[in-house]
Amino acid sequence: MSLPEPLSRLIEQLQKLPGIGAKGAQRLAFHVLKNPRDDAERLCDAIRDVKEQVTYCSICNNITAADPCVFCAGDGRDHGVICVIEEPQNVMVVEKTREFRGVYHVLMGVLSPLHGVGPDDLKIKGLLHRVGAGGVSEVILATSPTVEGEATALYLARLLKPLGVRVTRIAMGVPVGSDLEYADEVTMTRAMEGRREL
Amino acid sequence: MSLPEPLSRLIEQLQKLPGIGAKGAQRLAFHVLKNPRDDAERLCDAIRDVKEQVTYCSICNNITAADPCVFCAGDGRDHGVICVIEEPQNVMVVEKTREFRGVYHVLMGVLSPLHGVGPDDLKIKGLLHRVGAGGVSEVILATSPTVEGEATALYLARLLKPLGVRVTRIAMGVPVGSDLEYADEVTMTRAMEGRREL
Repeated sequence: MSLPEPLSRLIEQLQKLPGIGAKGAQRLAFHVLKNPRDDAERLCDAIRDVKEQVTYCSICNNITAADPCVFCAGDGRDHGVICVIEEPQNVMVVEKTREFRGVYHVLMGVLSPLHGVGPDDLKIKGLLHRVGAGGVSEVILATSPTVEGEATALYLARLLKPLGVRVTRIAMGVPVGSDLEYADEVTMTRAMEGRREL
Repeated sequence: MSLPEPLSRLIEQLQKLPGIGAKGAQRLAFHVLKNPRDDAERLCDAIRDVKEQVTYCSICNNITAADPCVFCAGDGRDHGVICVIEEPQNVMVVEKTREFRGVYHVLMGVLSPLHGVGPDDLKIKGLLHRVGAGGVSEVILATSPTVEGEATALYLARLLKPLGVRVTRIAMGVPVGSDLEYADEVTMTRAMEGRREL
């Protein structure tokens, strides 16, 4: 069956979004078609506003409506502790702990030779510049506990340590609330290695 | 963490879409933020065009850019056989069989007393009018094999039969390619009941 052109074009556009397949895109397109025009307008306005009003912090690369971001501009934050993360959305994960009072540095990716991502593709120079400018006591490497995240952390550690700053890596181990039965061997090995005196 | 207002607004709008939860909406919003503005524009244009250019066929209620739709206007279709379906997207499922050469009638829903959907909320009058006008030899009831779809089919059959038209219901049974081990008892009962001589 040939769908009306605007509808098949919408399905095509929706399929480009992450996590949305052919069936999902079709379902969304028919939802847009069926629902009030106001809903569609609000969605479009929100998309346009994000592209127009949200930018990246010139200091830490976090997303923000005003430059510098609330963290880099904030008096209440400890500018001597920088938490290095892969993507802007990782800021939320750390903030949810309500424990971290330092600032951030978003790498905008991880080292991934397989995907052609090298050191020059990440925001590493800015990080070295911030640390080199002094006043930084600790850099917490909070990249993902994946092969690529680990490699990136090790790479950064080698660059940062000569600058005389304390470089730490977030702990890896069994997640709180999980059943030990389902822990994989690599995680369990890390949990054993990282054991602490009680 | 407080996200920039446009971003949290986009996440809020995306969450209203079917099958998209909090995590999915966040992922999509960050995708929109990260990708080129042109992509976002194309998506918005597609959404707007669907709302502006796609309407419903005045005869069968199928979605269409031109009224009447390709099926109702088509010479190559048998206007004497009407396939009754719940939603416009069901047209595609039937068309994919490449077997059906008749026309359609979209009910725009199913009878559902629990959700307050009664006969007057569906496009039933138009169907009766089409059949009553003559020239229709068969009405195939292809509503879903659910409790509501079944009830709707039975309701329609009672209204249509007095008009002297042949009323049929699509077969229910075990899906082709499935393992019988996983067939539920209701489906299996229907499959047994509907068995045919070989």
